[in-house]
Amino acid sequence: MSTGAVPPVSAERPRMRWYGWGERDDGPALSESASALLRQALGLSDGPPSRVELEHVRLPEPALPGEVRSRLAGISELVDDREARVRHALGRSYPDLVRLRSGDGSSAPDAVLRPASHDEVAAVIAECDAARVALVPFGGGTSVVGGVEPLREGFAGVVSLDLSRMDAVRSVDSRSLLAVFDPGVTGPQAEAELGREGLTLGHFPQSWEFATIGGYVATRSAGQASTGYGRFERMVRGLRAVAPAGELEVKPFPASAAGPALRELLVGSEGVLGVITEATLALRRAPETRVYDGWWLPSFGEGAEAFRLLVQSAAAPDVARLSDEAETLVATAGSSAEGSGDRLDGGCLAVVGFEGSEENTSSRAERCRSLLAAAGARELGPGPGEAWLHNRYDAPYLRDELLDRGVMAETLESATSWSNLERLYRAVGDALRDTLAARGTPPIVTCHVSHLYPSGASLYYTFLARQERGAELEQWRAAKSAASDAIVAAGGTITHHHAVGSDHAPWMRAEVGELGLELLRAAKERLDPRGIMNPGKLLPPR
Amino acid sequence: MSTGAVPPVSAERPRMRWYGWGERDDGPALSESASALLRQALGLSDGPPSRVELEHVRLPEPALPGEVRSRLAGISELVDDREARVRHALGRSYPDLVRLRSGDGSSAPDAVLRPASHDEVAAVIAECDAARVALVPFGGGTSVVGGVEPLREGFAGVVSLDLSRMDAVRSVDSRSLLAVFDPGVTGPQAEAELGREGLTLGHFPQSWEFATIGGYVATRSAGQASTGYGRFERMVRGLRAVAPAGELEVKPFPASAAGPALRELLVGSEGVLGVITEATLALRRAPETRVYDGWWLPSFGEGAEAFRLLVQSAAAPDVARLSDEAETLVATAGSSAEGSGDRLDGGCLAVVGFEGSEENTSSRAERCRSLLAAAGARELGPGPGEAWLHNRYDAPYLRDELLDRGVMAETLESATSWSNLERLYRAVGDALRDTLAARGTPPIVTCHVSHLYPSGASLYYTFLARQERGAELEQWRAAKSAASDAIVAAGGTITHHHAVGSDHAPWMRAEVGELGLELLRAAKERLDPRGIMNPGKLLPPR
Repeated sequence: MSTGAVPPVSAERPRMRWYGWGERDDGPALSESASALLRQALGLSDGPPSRVELEHVRLPEPALPGEVRSRLAGISELVDDREARVRHALGRSYPDLVRLRSGDGSSAPDAVLRPASHDEVAAVIAECDAARVALVPFGGGTSVVGGVEPLREGFAGVVSLDLSRMDAVRSVDSRSLLAVFDPGVTGPQAEAELGREGLTLGHFPQSWEFATIGGYVATRSAGQASTGYGRFERMVRGLRAVAPAGELEVKPFPASAAGPALRELLVGSEGVLGVITEATLALRRAPETRVYDGWWLPSFGEGAEAFRLLVQSAAAPDVARLSDEAETLVATAGSSAEGSGDRLDGGCLAVVGFEGSEENTSSRAERCRSLLAAAGARELGPGPGEAWLHNRYDAPYLRDELLDRGVMAETLESATSWSNLERLYRAVGDALRDTLAARGTPPIVTCHVSHLYPSGASLYYTFLARQERGAELEQWRAAKSAASDAIVAAGGTITHHHAVGSDHAPWMRAEVGELGLELLRAAKERLDPRGIMNPGKLLPPR
Repeated sequence: MSTGAVPPVSAERPRMRWYGWGERDDGPALSESASALLRQALGLSDGPPSRVELEHVRLPEPALPGEVRSRLAGISELVDDREARVRHALGRSYPDLVRLRSGDGSSAPDAVLRPASHDEVAAVIAECDAARVALVPFGGGTSVVGGVEPLREGFAGVVSLDLSRMDAVRSVDSRSLLAVFDPGVTGPQAEAELGREGLTLGHFPQSWEFATIGGYVATRSAGQASTGYGRFERMVRGLRAVAPAGELEVKPFPASAAGPALRELLVGSEGVLGVITEATLALRRAPETRVYDGWWLPSFGEGAEAFRLLVQSAAAPDVARLSDEAETLVATAGSSAEGSGDRLDGGCLAVVGFEGSEENTSSRAERCRSLLAAAGARELGPGPGEAWLHNRYDAPYLRDELLDRGVMAETLESATSWSNLERLYRAVGDALRDTLAARGTPPIVTCHVSHLYPSGASLYYTFLARQERGAELEQWRAAKSAASDAIVAAGGTITHHHAVGSDHAPWMRAEVGELGLELLRAAKERLDPRGIMNPGKLLPPR
């Protein structure tokens, strides 16, 4: 058990690399033993792949007509130097990083606009709409599904709309536990400001250091503590958005029966309907303390069953993570110093975390402890909980290192009912192993459950394989495609919290049906008749 | 404190009157003292108003072309006798009952179709679409906002689609706590079937004896225990619906980030987009026990503040009701036998209820008790909780009796943030009192809080006044209109759980804005290009 006060949050954040994730002083690094394990398991042999310098990234000629550029520059801050264009050319998916490292900047926008207000956003949209210029909303740029890649086909040009200057917490109503945010506020900024008033959002996705409120709204984000604090859509009360057809406002009522929930059309709209310019979000009182426990469970199936009992007994922790046998093996490789390595042999590691008042966390943790023990779980030392808290944002930093060593490192996720969890778990793992083995690059596939619901849970996969030098993207596409087909066939959602972007768009027909797509298209056509808003995302072509 | 085991639910339900609510053996009746109070307070003097017999209700000539009628009768059970047409002419709002009692059956459908399956619904819709016949989905017929009134203007005819024959619980997945329901299943049917497996929906609106699953979905229903069990939209996981343009399916994933939530477009769609033919709903374990406490609070404002602390401390009861001073006075008139009459003088009555396992309810009730006591509340005897449980479905029965005595009896509801609650409370009450006093019929206006959210609460008003004989509908319209304008001006939602129907449609522009309406229209036009689905509801005319 690890118990302790919750430290205050600093608004400081690391700088993002143009070709990867962040640069942090205490950034994580692969241990030598882990590197050795990978080299052996994945059969790495080639020397490290090359990476181009920023000045050698190949960019398209800016296509924006001169007078349009002038008018846009008159409305809002406009930058179109090399670095700005490269930094807005792609998100942070594995294929994005492969492309950037190889010097492929073909998707760079003609310019980056940095509006400072709702009115500037509206004016930029109006100008782009009139000039048939595509417009891509850009928050933290952390999309792992191709959500922020500018696609210019059929347009007179394409610009990226970077919302980072709209970064104020506009107002806090601590009586109603509501606050109004600009779209460009990042996780650290939000938590630092709210923390001063003893409040929190409780939203901590892996992208937390960089991602923004607007991005959370637009992608239906879920965080590491969403089992307790709820997915981001549960926090959204009010919204303001601008579309080419005008302005939309969703009032922040606590509840309403006034027809379909338009809020839920904007949440998850990924910039294809308009730009979120303001969000009124539900807050929580900041936790006084937190309790994180590590547990050993005899198998993934038994662990999932224990987690099911927890959430269905209203005893779910705020953070609930259960690694499968493979992930447990990788996580504990080289960490036998913690003294738990032998006990984990053949079993699974779980971390459960509680946050709140002293009384609340201890009583909930106690209840969880008795249910887990009754389900055959064994409590481990304080190590796993502390390690998880310390490393919770590390994975994308490590991905950069893996890419440096010629390793494909990718993640994907789904969710399904408890009754169907085992079937989905096997199907996706098998698809990844079979597909990559058939290409001569047998992978390491690991999985964990990280979000519990009364009716089911999420599954989050990580897979690593030796890169097929020169065919990195084809290799990735084959694996991604096989996994996505397997998800659909096995009754999972195509994405639990990564959103759709362009990567998942081909599976949206299976997800919502042809008439469901038509409904989304009807919304888009009404709000964005010329289709300038983030083209190519969310919706597959007709 | 009232503690006790939860009795099993019978699937039996009372029969609905053609001109009012239900007929029940133990149906409630106004006491003599309450009648005397009303006579005096409202200045009743006229003799009781007349009510026509069923055979004298004025019905329009059936307009359905003979061949269309034949084709529809070949698809599905069709009835078009007098009683069936009258029973589907209106819902159960106050103006609906005034009209029925006066013999106004002008909105009767040409025929009532009673499909037995999804496929029959689809075939009926196709036939109506081809023949330009309007179609009104009909569940329990309990709408209090004009939601099921057939409107035929501009159509070759209008039929009511009564879903009561589609009343099976299709499957129960007790591992995932999910069940698949036909749309015509009523509350008592659902609870009786689920109860046999130790499960419950936990959804108990005042219309529970009659209302159906499909109606709950279509109206974004909230129940008396929604503070604990959640509004109906929180229970809806999967849906199947048929529209003129085809079939829609929302898969019952526990969560998804795959774009906007189409589920939330169908929930609350009130039959204007299509017909819900199947719903997969989240279940709960049936409670073993329940604890209902009555409390006295010094004022409505202090009571609301205490409730805010409860819900924001995660200590909210499952049922939370706080009557204002006026409602407390009416509720306790003639009940001094309970021994709490004197203590309530000048204050407010609250009922808080907990349901669950023995351990869970007692620990939650204990925590609530200490928070309420700290907020200045005083615990009352077991009376209020028991009385509330016993009378929880009574109000619409009493309304019939009030109409018999020439009393206008109407309810309306809204919701807003905690910070804005006092303002909304005063504004709506003042609007009702001012408007009706100016017409020479000063009302009794009472209010209670019945649904708590971390960011705010609902307000539920009841108002009684002497009917303006011969101008009952104008009188009602004036009061309703003034209250609705006041709600909008004071920052409330136009409806917290009664839905929109035709009564609230004029305020939808204020609720969602012009572009919000356009979004809803875009959805309707894509799914229902000829506009046959429940015309005149939800959306105001352009």
